[in-house]
Amino acid sequence: MTSQATTLPARYYTDAGIFHQELEQLFFQKWICAGRGEQLASPGDYFLCEVGGESVIVTKDSSGTLRAFYNVCRHRGTRICGETHGTFAGRIQCPYHAWTYGLDGKLLGAPHMEDAGFQHGNYPLHSVDVDTWDGHLFLNLSSQKPQSLAMQLADLPEKFAPWQMQELRIYKRIVYNVKANWKLIVINYNECMHCPVLHPLLSRITNYLSGENEIPNSSYIGGSMGFRDNAQTMSMDGAIHREYLPGLSESARKQTLYYTIYPNLFLSLHPDYMMTHTLWPVAPDATRVICEWHFHPSEMNKPDFQAEDAVAFWDRTNREDWGISELSQLGISSRAYVPGPYSPREALPAAFDKLIVEEARKSTVR
Amino acid sequence: MTSQATTLPARYYTDAGIFHQELEQLFFQKWICAGRGEQLASPGDYFLCEVGGESVIVTKDSSGTLRAFYNVCRHRGTRICGETHGTFAGRIQCPYHAWTYGLDGKLLGAPHMEDAGFQHGNYPLHSVDVDTWDGHLFLNLSSQKPQSLAMQLADLPEKFAPWQMQELRIYKRIVYNVKANWKLIVINYNECMHCPVLHPLLSRITNYLSGENEIPNSSYIGGSMGFRDNAQTMSMDGAIHREYLPGLSESARKQTLYYTIYPNLFLSLHPDYMMTHTLWPVAPDATRVICEWHFHPSEMNKPDFQAEDAVAFWDRTNREDWGISELSQLGISSRAYVPGPYSPREALPAAFDKLIVEEARKSTVR
Amino acid sequence: MTSQATTLPARYYTDAGIFHQELEQLFFQKWICAGRGEQLASPGDYFLCEVGGESVIVTKDSSGTLRAFYNVCRHRGTRICGETHGTFAGRIQCPYHAWTYGLDGKLLGAPHMEDAGFQHGNYPLHSVDVDTWDGHLFLNLSSQKPQSLAMQLADLPEKFAPWQMQELRIYKRIVYNVKANWKLIVINYNECMHCPVLHPLLSRITNYLSGENEIPNSSYIGGSMGFRDNAQTMSMDGAIHREYLPGLSESARKQTLYYTIYPNLFLSLHPDYMMTHTLWPVAPDATRVICEWHFHPSEMNKPDFQAEDAVAFWDRTNREDWGISELSQLGISSRAYVPGPYSPREALPAAFDKLIVEEARKSTVR
Repeated sequence: MTSQATTLPARYYTDAGIFHQELEQLFFQKWICAGRGEQLASPGDYFLCEVGGESVIVTKDSSGTLRAFYNVCRHRGTRICGETHGTFAGRIQCPYHAWTYGLDGKLLGAPHMEDAGFQHGNYPLHSVDVDTWDGHLFLNLSSQKPQSLAMQLADLPEKFAPWQMQELRIYKRIVYNVKANWKLIVINYNECMHCPVLHPLLSRITNYLSGENEIPNSSYIGGSMGFRDNAQTMSMDGAIHREYLPGLSESARKQTLYYTIYPNLFLSLHPDYMMTHTLWPVAPDATRVICEWHFHPSEMNKPDFQAEDAVAFWDRTNREDWGISELSQLGISSRAYVPGPYSPREALPAAFDKLIVEEARKSTVR
Repeated sequence: MTSQATTLPARYYTDAGIFHQELEQLFFQKWICAGRGEQLASPGDYFLCEVGGESVIVTKDSSGTLRAFYNVCRHRGTRICGETHGTFAGRIQCPYHAWTYGLDGKLLGAPHMEDAGFQHGNYPLHSVDVDTWDGHLFLNLSSQKPQSLAMQLADLPEKFAPWQMQELRIYKRIVYNVKANWKLIVINYNECMHCPVLHPLLSRITNYLSGENEIPNSSYIGGSMGFRDNAQTMSMDGAIHREYLPGLSESARKQTLYYTIYPNLFLSLHPDYMMTHTLWPVAPDATRVICEWHFHPSEMNKPDFQAEDAVAFWDRTNREDWGISELSQLGISSRAYVPGPYSPREALPAAFDKLIVEEARKSTVR
Repeated sequence: MTSQATTLPARYYTDAGIFHQELEQLFFQKWICAGRGEQLASPGDYFLCEVGGESVIVTKDSSGTLRAFYNVCRHRGTRICGETHGTFAGRIQCPYHAWTYGLDGKLLGAPHMEDAGFQHGNYPLHSVDVDTWDGHLFLNLSSQKPQSLAMQLADLPEKFAPWQMQELRIYKRIVYNVKANWKLIVINYNECMHCPVLHPLLSRITNYLSGENEIPNSSYIGGSMGFRDNAQTMSMDGAIHREYLPGLSESARKQTLYYTIYPNLFLSLHPDYMMTHTLWPVAPDATRVICEWHFHPSEMNKPDFQAEDAVAFWDRTNREDWGISELSQLGISSRAYVPGPYSPREALPAAFDKLIVEEARKSTVR
């Protein structure tokens, strides 16, 4: 990365064509993080994943296998489920004409379709690929056989194994609607040069000059950040109010890791908890962000467990980040905007921009 | 109709170009039902009809002739009437510069236009064709001389003469804003295979396997449905709380007729009342539906007349239908949607789709 | 102007392409009135001017020179100021990464940009031309050197010198959001043939047949209007409740002047006060209008000063004008609309339309 690196032209943040191309290439062709396996405790449990205008049913079949389907009946196209989550009683039934599917998506019943020629086997629910990594649940909406999730994740499973993420349980979820392009939220997350100005509370706990970044690759960008002398974790007072996560080395206890796992997962690993953000592009200038806080069950089971210090800390910091991202969106939309220079401390945003441009070049759509 | 019939491609429900083409060919070229003649009791009474972004003044002139005009002043184009209905004091006057028209649309006064060359006769209100059928009021916005309403209606006047619809009077109007393409509402109205799943209340009164459909033609589709043994009409308890409409045969007293009269009128004839729906496309995914309940004045004049049983019954059923139509709109908009198979019990929807495709083929616009 | 003059085709009021072309040619290439110099009393005072989706910072530097800049940081494009007005503490600092600019727009500090090759001098804020006329503040957003404000204003400074506009001070500001094309608001302002119908209150004070218009030119259109015998100014009762503005001739005390100074200023000079409207096109069918009432400080300093009579009078009249302009927008959008004839009393609207058509012809964009 040299000093010549600059921000992207405005059209990457304002053009509807580029937006849809990115949805297609990054959100519909790649594995996207859709939540956590714990959301589907028992067969028939389901939740809906909304991505790029699509609604996907994610469920667990009677054999315990995870399944995902487009939320579209094969009869007349009706959206089958309206509720964001729930439990199927062994069957998925369309509320219009009672076409009924198994939890594996197979069509079991279709009233009045008894005509010669109708084959139930031809009308399963349209399936979506689903897989997991250490408790994180991923979907792939590609119409062609995608590369495996393991291939996409590269060395991440090994890297984060000590955190035993599969063990962790959700404590809190906050959904934010941000009036900014999804890439501005990625860029914001991947540098802390803005922290002294924008995040006074955070800057009392962590020094933005601490830590170091990994060399960017095609699967993720990220790095670490250390604590100031008087702090042990990211919380309102910087003190740690829970046991360390089991299995962490001494050095892992002294830092937070911030990783952007392409295309839509921010993984923030703290000494005592995991925070995740998933990004859901809604429009060139709008993104839904789902932020979750996850803790170890041994802590959550303690009668005096509380974690509002971690939630409140990041909720405030999140809102500061969304606000400035919205101001970025507004300024970049100006006729006066021209790409500006990145500093060496913005190497991760620059690497991300580079990947975005490469993806755009791959496309023959435009 | 064979089992190969399938639903239409998604673009018929989502594409703005197709939507506007349908408005043009079906709503601006054909006669559309705009209400009832009783809405204009005396000369000067008027109401506004909103169709496809247009506002039409419908009124009665001093000779008692029905008249309709675009709500557009010939001077500077101002929308003349803002109120949805009312009574003109013998003249139609623009509130901007007082251009004044007769109830026949002729320009009577135009202040300061006294210049040589200005001919009042050149600036009448733009007229819209108007006609009636048995109390129903129709408009035709075609810029060319349309075929007559009688031609468009074919054998309907004769068929429904026994109901003496002209005699009936409105009791209740409910306006619904439905987030679905207008054609999905037509399709929903024209099959009852969904009734057992979607309409438990209705299914206690009528058996969806009862009745029979007419052979579809280019003017309408429709058919009858009978009552279960313990029911006499469509009401909350299935009991009939009013006298039968005069003139109905024994067989007519034992069924409800459901007709879709192209392009925008649903005519539902019950033993003791008439229900009408008119459809007003607003956007590819939005339709305004005006539902009215009409009764015989001899019943309405009774001191203990009430009809909330019929209103409540259909209001609930309507809302069930709008809800599922909205789910259809959402599912059809999915990238996973492909046309699905119609059963033999969906012959009327299939016939309607066929007509829609034929209309689309006529167009050279696209 | 002959009687053949007609209103413009509908597309001038509904087409997004024409709208943006007008923004480009009239609002971004010409000087637009952005407010009053008194809004920037001291160095560092600023206000934001929003025009065509752009946000411009208007401020006064330490030497007392007026300055204007696009509200866009040169680093990553962030909108720097969110507050509509305020005071800079000697510097303009971006809230994201603390890039800091002088009040003259020069980049003073850019953290972590110390790399070889980075030249602060290359990254000033993008400047916007600013100038004043007799207390009115104008901006020019053209990327090329524009003609001077004095050239654009032609003989206006001399013509209105007696009113000593620079001396006047704002008393009241009301912002209106009007659902009509900006040109319909111009046209409405420039004829009073609608006054007898639309403005009964105003018509008690002024006779729309009084006064006379100037010959239109490329800088402005306008004219005068006299008072009825029992009236002295535009106020709720027609009486004058303040001293005449100093320096006015006998004849100037007996009339109101109404001028549209292209492209966006309405200047309404009364015997005892000045009213200004500035127009801010938002969409083909939407305009923000800022209306201000300005009085002489010698009157405003009187303990019993009040001016609600003038504010209430024009606020009511304004709302009547916005209402009819919105009805015009609706009617012109009809498929039935065709250009209609202007009367001789609509010579100023016709002249304005002519200028609009000439500007459209200049464009090679479309």
